[in-house]
Amino acid sequence: MRKGRVSDAVIRRLPRYFRHLTDLELAGVVRISSSALGQSMGLTASQIRQDLSCFGEFGQQGYGYNVENLRREIADILGMRQGHTAVLLGAGNLGRALMENFHFERSGFTLQAAFDVCPEVVGVKMAGLTVRHANTLEEYLQEHPCDVGVLTVPRSAAQSMADRLIASGVKGIWNFTNIELQHGAGGVRVENVHFADSLLTLSYLISEGV
Amino acid sequence: MRKGRVSDAVIRRLPRYFRHLTDLELAGVVRISSSALGQSMGLTASQIRQDLSCFGEFGQQGYGYNVENLRREIADILGMRQGHTAVLLGAGNLGRALMENFHFERSGFTLQAAFDVCPEVVGVKMAGLTVRHANTLEEYLQEHPCDVGVLTVPRSAAQSMADRLIASGVKGIWNFTNIELQHGAGGVRVENVHFADSLLTLSYLISEGV
Repeated sequence: MRKGRVSDAVIRRLPRYFRHLTDLELAGVVRISSSALGQSMGLTASQIRQDLSCFGEFGQQGYGYNVENLRREIADILGMRQGHTAVLLGAGNLGRALMENFHFERSGFTLQAAFDVCPEVVGVKMAGLTVRHANTLEEYLQEHPCDVGVLTVPRSAAQSMADRLIASGVKGIWNFTNIELQHGAGGVRVENVHFADSLLTLSYLISEGV
Repeated sequence: MRKGRVSDAVIRRLPRYFRHLTDLELAGVVRISSSALGQSMGLTASQIRQDLSCFGEFGQQGYGYNVENLRREIADILGMRQGHTAVLLGAGNLGRALMENFHFERSGFTLQAAFDVCPEVVGVKMAGLTVRHANTLEEYLQEHPCDVGVLTVPRSAAQSMADRLIASGVKGIWNFTNIELQHGAGGVRVENVHFADSLLTLSYLISEGV
């Protein structure tokens, strides 16, 4: 299905396609032209055709795209039906917010376990999971191999917890710590959530003289 | 300083430039070539020169960029020294995590006040601010006009709180609710933080067959 190397920009648009197609499907839209899809996403029709051509043949000349089919294809491309699993490290405010309010399953993930070191948090039940002590992380991951570690620990613990996740064989780290993690050549993928980048974009947009 | 309309992609790279230049300055780097800066950011030298040319003349042929100067220029372009202010709506787990752990001031913002409706949260002091009742929002904003509303309320309250912020004259909304807000033609800017887009990107990267 994949055709050679896909650019980072295209990869980052895929979740947006998925999100827009989900909204369209919920709104009862059965098919859509590339120009209409582009308009709702702020892209040109030709950019959409070019993006999707990285992954195969979608849509039909004169018909456009079947919304349900395209959404399912993109879900497959995104690996949403591979049964990915995650563990969360750091059940403080942010970790707890993700556990209780973020729908991992809508992205195809199962959150399997959460870890912390604070006595006030270890043993507490959150979103159906009892928080485990972080010193049992390796033992847990040996018995329950996991695809992704969600890193919501304080900055000071970020690199050492990342190292432990990598040594335990995770494939990816979802990094909320605002630290540029060193993750070696082992092929582990790191996806950073940079809140400040987002706020600074807004800062630019509301500033005088834009 | 600004030259015409700047593309969304360039705008979104500015915070990354700022972040990388901050790291370089902290590491004691005084000047850097566009190719070295590009290498550390996964961009080509010509892309960097092109990006920065949207805003004026930076750097010097054969010398490169003075790190401190370029960082300060980008901070100005991003509006980081305009004294922006923010109020936060929804002091639940996520709101509290932002209040206690996110450094608004590093992005040039002052977080002025926080609002909620839950009796367990209203009146509680978090990060130096006493959480106010949301029914005093309009009154507060009339006395203390504010640039940005940080929206960390539950989905069900998202649109109505956004409407109230807009009616009270904010210029921007930093939206964590995963709702596509309707924000009319009033010129209010909305910046969405889509956690799922980020996790789906990671899902793609760790999936079989990439």
